[in-house]
Amino acid sequence: MTRPAFSAPAASAAAGRGAGATAGPVHIQGTGLIGASIGLGLRSSGVTVTLDDPSPAALAVAEQIGAGRLLGAAGLEGAAAPTLVVVASPPDVAARVVAEQLERFPGAVVTDVASVKAAILHDLCASGADLTRYVGSHPMAGRERTGPAAASADLFVGRPWVIAAAPQTDPGAALRVRELAVDLGAHPTYLDAASHDAAVALVSHVPQILSSLTAARLVDAPAGALDLAGQGLRDMTRIARSDPNLWAAILAANGPAVAAVLRATRADLDRAIVALEAGADPATLGQALLELAGLVGIGRRGAERIPGKHGGAPRVFDTVTVMVPDSPGELGRLFVTMGRLGVNLEDLKLEHGQGQLVGLAEIAVAPGRGASLADQLVREGWRILR
Amino acid sequence: MTRPAFSAPAASAAAGRGAGATAGPVHIQGTGLIGASIGLGLRSSGVTVTLDDPSPAALAVAEQIGAGRLLGAAGLEGAAAPTLVVVASPPDVAARVVAEQLERFPGAVVTDVASVKAAILHDLCASGADLTRYVGSHPMAGRERTGPAAASADLFVGRPWVIAAAPQTDPGAALRVRELAVDLGAHPTYLDAASHDAAVALVSHVPQILSSLTAARLVDAPAGALDLAGQGLRDMTRIARSDPNLWAAILAANGPAVAAVLRATRADLDRAIVALEAGADPATLGQALLELAGLVGIGRRGAERIPGKHGGAPRVFDTVTVMVPDSPGELGRLFVTMGRLGVNLEDLKLEHGQGQLVGLAEIAVAPGRGASLADQLVREGWRILR
Repeated sequence: MTRPAFSAPAASAAAGRGAGATAGPVHIQGTGLIGASIGLGLRSSGVTVTLDDPSPAALAVAEQIGAGRLLGAAGLEGAAAPTLVVVASPPDVAARVVAEQLERFPGAVVTDVASVKAAILHDLCASGADLTRYVGSHPMAGRERTGPAAASADLFVGRPWVIAAAPQTDPGAALRVRELAVDLGAHPTYLDAASHDAAVALVSHVPQILSSLTAARLVDAPAGALDLAGQGLRDMTRIARSDPNLWAAILAANGPAVAAVLRATRADLDRAIVALEAGADPATLGQALLELAGLVGIGRRGAERIPGKHGGAPRVFDTVTVMVPDSPGELGRLFVTMGRLGVNLEDLKLEHGQGQLVGLAEIAVAPGRGASLADQLVREGWRILR
Repeated sequence: MTRPAFSAPAASAAAGRGAGATAGPVHIQGTGLIGASIGLGLRSSGVTVTLDDPSPAALAVAEQIGAGRLLGAAGLEGAAAPTLVVVASPPDVAARVVAEQLERFPGAVVTDVASVKAAILHDLCASGADLTRYVGSHPMAGRERTGPAAASADLFVGRPWVIAAAPQTDPGAALRVRELAVDLGAHPTYLDAASHDAAVALVSHVPQILSSLTAARLVDAPAGALDLAGQGLRDMTRIARSDPNLWAAILAANGPAVAAVLRATRADLDRAIVALEAGADPATLGQALLELAGLVGIGRRGAERIPGKHGGAPRVFDTVTVMVPDSPGELGRLFVTMGRLGVNLEDLKLEHGQGQLVGLAEIAVAPGRGASLADQLVREGWRILR
């Protein structure tokens, strides 16, 4: 039986991580997806975790899945006060909850994990709270599903966790939050609150809006048009399937930063519309072509700046595209073949056909290995799209 | 040795298709990716194919890879005239080339395969050519690479091929083009020229522009911001890596239809910007939340209209997310496991981590099968993101 390189026993998702630097106890205020996942992660390395949430249902589920114990439950009254409080409340109430927790636990470091930072810091400053013990942070993790039932101890593994210390933050407090992040398998990174908000506007919030805008045009599209949909449209509308209320709150909380980027996008859009209209006239076609090529060219340069697989410079792989009959088991057979050939797979993308039952498997391997892989697969009876 | 369900001998990509309805000879004018691929596909079922292209290099490569024989080459002088001519020239010259071919081969049906149809039809009508033998069409296929060296006999398998007959088109001519499409494994679909252009504007051209606009904002982004890039941004900027000159020509040729959609998008964008600015003010926050939730909600409805894997209603699968250590061979090991378990894989998506070397494999199986698959994988030592 082949076992993967993790040393974790099969039954426990994160036990392989062992004891971390977070001593605890840790109190988690807000037991949705993020709060409950933090609880699960800490519990798996033996940290004492207490939970609270305004929703009895969310609290019950979080405790049920093992994210921690209800604060105030019998037996915890004499327990030690938390050394760290994680506020995992929605962004519109996070500042108020942070202020309450700072007062409730005078010895604890308090962090919030909302996806916006400046508005919360601003409201806290205005409230006059002592912010030496407060460090805003943001674990950039999450999946389409929300709520504690979707929580996982491993949600943060390999993900960035932004730590947004302010000038008045005690360095020891920031270190406490860094330890939390690293204990949960995340990759700590440091940005001040305003830079954080500008960054997530750019790489997360604006893409969400532009995906929604792309998909919105399809609502009234004729069915015949939708039948022509290809992989490009599917890529562009994947995140359009996000939860509207969740995203409305996030976007509203980062309104100014997102609006700033979108104003620049609108200027680009205006130029594109002018160029497209000029393309219909032979007298202005040349200028239109220059403008449109310039737009696509700048976009290409921007896309090339996105880091590659492990945060390094983007790598170029050889790709081999295999035609996979879409009957049951065929894709599995391809995988068995690749496993037997010892293919060191860098990446894999599946594209499904329309009508005829053929899919394409785009296999990425190290540069220079593509040709021999293609030959091997053809010898095994697979059809390659050359 | 496991063999896939294709009956094709390993060495020949498309021989399994056998003889088609296209009798030939077929003349291909323009031997880029599409033209050369059509040639390869026809040659594999034994059809006589002649080639021509203004670029001697493109012509030489196309002949070299077996897409056909040069028209006018020794030995072809007494050959039968083509029954079908495929014009695979760039959209800005296609109308002129179609008119030339209609005159050159008075007995042939002539089709062009450009990605826009109305402008070409309009120019042909204005030229006074006899259009009973002309049928515009559009095989919706292609990969990032261009040129005859990237050609494949299987490029069109499972893809839509739009047939855009005009009122004056002879029905027999349209049938000839349908036979070509089906012989090449494509899925014929019928739209008039204007409806075609509106459709590709919506599902292909506008998404290209919006991807380029998303990516353009990254050109001047701080490196710290790009480090926070997740799967959503990668999805939104994949097609931004397209060739600028190729796309400038396509967009300019479909300018009015694309501009029409983008004007509606711009109106949505303006409303989003207003809502985002209103979100910063508590007095207008409620209205802002309604507006933003409405935008994301409409986008979600649009995305849900995109057909599923085989053109049917979108299906919902169970997904199991497996953590895959990113050391060599681990992904292959997962595939061997899945092959051995006989997993009937509906879809697979890989997400790569940042910093820490862990990737996520999102496995889609039939509804109801997810729980047992997760248990099986855990028993085999894999970690599941629950």
